[in-house]
Amino acid sequence: MAIITLTTDFGYKDHYVAAIKGAILKEVPNANVVDISHAISPLDIQECAYILKNTYHYYPEGTIHIIGMDSEVSPENEHIAVFMNGHYFIGANNGIISLIAKNTKHQELVEISLPNTGKNSFPILEVFIKVACHIARGGKLGVVSKPFNRLKEIKELEPRITNNGKTIIGNVIYTDNYGNVVTNITKTLFEAYRNGRAFEIIARRQKINSIHHSYNGIIKYELPENQRLGPSDLLALFNSSGNIELAIYKSDLKSVGGASTLLGLKHLDMITVNFL
Amino acid sequence: MAIITLTTDFGYKDHYVAAIKGAILKEVPNANVVDISHAISPLDIQECAYILKNTYHYYPEGTIHIIGMDSEVSPENEHIAVFMNGHYFIGANNGIISLIAKNTKHQELVEISLPNTGKNSFPILEVFIKVACHIARGGKLGVVSKPFNRLKEIKELEPRITNNGKTIIGNVIYTDNYGNVVTNITKTLFEAYRNGRAFEIIARRQKINSIHHSYNGIIKYELPENQRLGPSDLLALFNSSGNIELAIYKSDLKSVGGASTLLGLKHLDMITVNFL
Amino acid sequence: MAIITLTTDFGYKDHYVAAIKGAILKEVPNANVVDISHAISPLDIQECAYILKNTYHYYPEGTIHIIGMDSEVSPENEHIAVFMNGHYFIGANNGIISLIAKNTKHQELVEISLPNTGKNSFPILEVFIKVACHIARGGKLGVVSKPFNRLKEIKELEPRITNNGKTIIGNVIYTDNYGNVVTNITKTLFEAYRNGRAFEIIARRQKINSIHHSYNGIIKYELPENQRLGPSDLLALFNSSGNIELAIYKSDLKSVGGASTLLGLKHLDMITVNFL
Repeated sequence: MAIITLTTDFGYKDHYVAAIKGAILKEVPNANVVDISHAISPLDIQECAYILKNTYHYYPEGTIHIIGMDSEVSPENEHIAVFMNGHYFIGANNGIISLIAKNTKHQELVEISLPNTGKNSFPILEVFIKVACHIARGGKLGVVSKPFNRLKEIKELEPRITNNGKTIIGNVIYTDNYGNVVTNITKTLFEAYRNGRAFEIIARRQKINSIHHSYNGIIKYELPENQRLGPSDLLALFNSSGNIELAIYKSDLKSVGGASTLLGLKHLDMITVNFL
Repeated sequence: MAIITLTTDFGYKDHYVAAIKGAILKEVPNANVVDISHAISPLDIQECAYILKNTYHYYPEGTIHIIGMDSEVSPENEHIAVFMNGHYFIGANNGIISLIAKNTKHQELVEISLPNTGKNSFPILEVFIKVACHIARGGKLGVVSKPFNRLKEIKELEPRITNNGKTIIGNVIYTDNYGNVVTNITKTLFEAYRNGRAFEIIARRQKINSIHHSYNGIIKYELPENQRLGPSDLLALFNSSGNIELAIYKSDLKSVGGASTLLGLKHLDMITVNFL
Repeated sequence: MAIITLTTDFGYKDHYVAAIKGAILKEVPNANVVDISHAISPLDIQECAYILKNTYHYYPEGTIHIIGMDSEVSPENEHIAVFMNGHYFIGANNGIISLIAKNTKHQELVEISLPNTGKNSFPILEVFIKVACHIARGGKLGVVSKPFNRLKEIKELEPRITNNGKTIIGNVIYTDNYGNVVTNITKTLFEAYRNGRAFEIIARRQKINSIHHSYNGIIKYELPENQRLGPSDLLALFNSSGNIELAIYKSDLKSVGGASTLLGLKHLDMITVNFL
């Protein structure tokens, strides 16, 4: 049973997503269509890439990922398909796929070439699902495509190392449902420069001196409850994606707030690590 | 594998939708239950019909569509099932099905008649899914129903032709996730009156003189980027449903706004086409 | 085909839910993963229990329910699995499962014990789905667990009977998508004390003297339309979960409001029944 995932900025009300699912099931009745997210901020390339990059590898090899964002074809935005790490990605050449592909060798990159598909306002339905269903039925990418090698590169903010390796300056790249802010400073990078030193993480006026592996890592369960850190305390975490994340323990954006609101951190704001 | 779709105003938090899915799977373990939308504005008959009408035909023939809105039975709101265009629709006689059925010959229209189903507050669970599962198992509509012929008609705003065929006055019938506003003026109607003439579309104080087939149709890619129309420019479109739609290129209701907010267009507001 | 349900506070945007689904499909390709809700208020134990308790029994026996909330393991929050009423529940010992299990004899209660799973911030992915997939493949709970008997009890507000059985004082326990407020006063309790007497339900300054079995129960269809109660009128209902619920007929929180907003009723507010 082929798995086809959908990542779009269509939201959860309109008929677009359901139309796509119907059209897939009409072509491949036993396809398993899975939603990654339809709540991507409209046209936010970075956010879409972040979500799909952190999700796709959990799926079985052979999974087909349709990316439904900024997908209208133009001379500057070709329809492409990529096979990499055992997964298929179908979308437009708008930078999302190149962000996902970063540091990954893609085995196959093609431009989609279907007969009779001119300009239209719903290419996921008219083009992408046709390619996805072709692959789902065991077809080859080559049949629906022509060679391509101009994958559009998008500049991502990269953490900068300064001060003779004593400082890493990173940025907020994502804020999640709890207001937890994810930085682009990975555990790998952090450890590569740490050299066993103590450190401080600076976010606005807050300083943090330790990084946990779980949110409740800040709780010292051996202490009586009233002497522990706990709900509403700030912590840093190596999160499940391998990035440094700042969080408020047991946060809730609708009541107590989260790291994003309490620290006033927005997308791309600076987070600094100083090794002491 | 039978496909059963759900269209409701239950939202995405409460347990209602999940209860329905469980009850279906208990009766038909291999049913494929697909969400059309659960974000219909409570009791908005027109919106529900618009979304389902633009979706259902993408599904394979034989698909069973449950409509979970304004579904309590009453002397004025019978439970009905319709088979048309190869699809089954199960819901209440509140006008949604008649709006979907407009211009469509239904092959079968029945009133649902199940033993032991009195008044209750969750008829989708108690009645509709029983009918859906009966059909999914290959059963006939006749077994769970009695004849019926009083499909409730709902008046839809229709575009008016005035000024000796020189003017079409339509209305906004839907606003989507991007703030794009869909009108009830179809491409078919527009072309029937155009007769090769130039035209202007008037929405509030804005005038538009062309209609595209894709959102990026306004972009003249042959020009240097700084001389092109682009993000935040207004355009008209024949959309994927065949209606004239007004959109802001690359709109985002949470940041730059969309056609609905920037033009101040609400449901049923007037849109005029003048042939020149 | 094993059914695995997900109930979390992850929301609908982030990659967490989709990662879980992928990881399940990688282990059990033909699993049917069904969303109960991902819109639980962050860390709201009572709300999560309310939603799952009112949903799970609609699913076929053998269904596996993963509860993804407050799930980090600690000395005070063990990972547990329960088999009761023919259903499996996998989650943390934070009170949710005990609330669901209330008045239910559980046949098996174990602490999850997997090799190589230390502290981490995403235990649903690292622990719960492994147990779920083990069960889905026909495995026994005993293989992945050790005995356990310290199910954490959470105090729930119970209705109080006062005034020599003439008064029931209950509370609002849930507000749904329409602003309908559900109380903890069940039909069973109400009937046990009623003894055929007339009654009044008091919510703030409103009094209601009848309880219906459907929302449109307040409408007297035999009267001309302008003499009926109808949209925007307050009613009480024995809802589909067997609780007394207060509702505004045809309410919409985004326009006319619902019982919650019009009566100013919040979580845990008092609702009184007086038998006359």
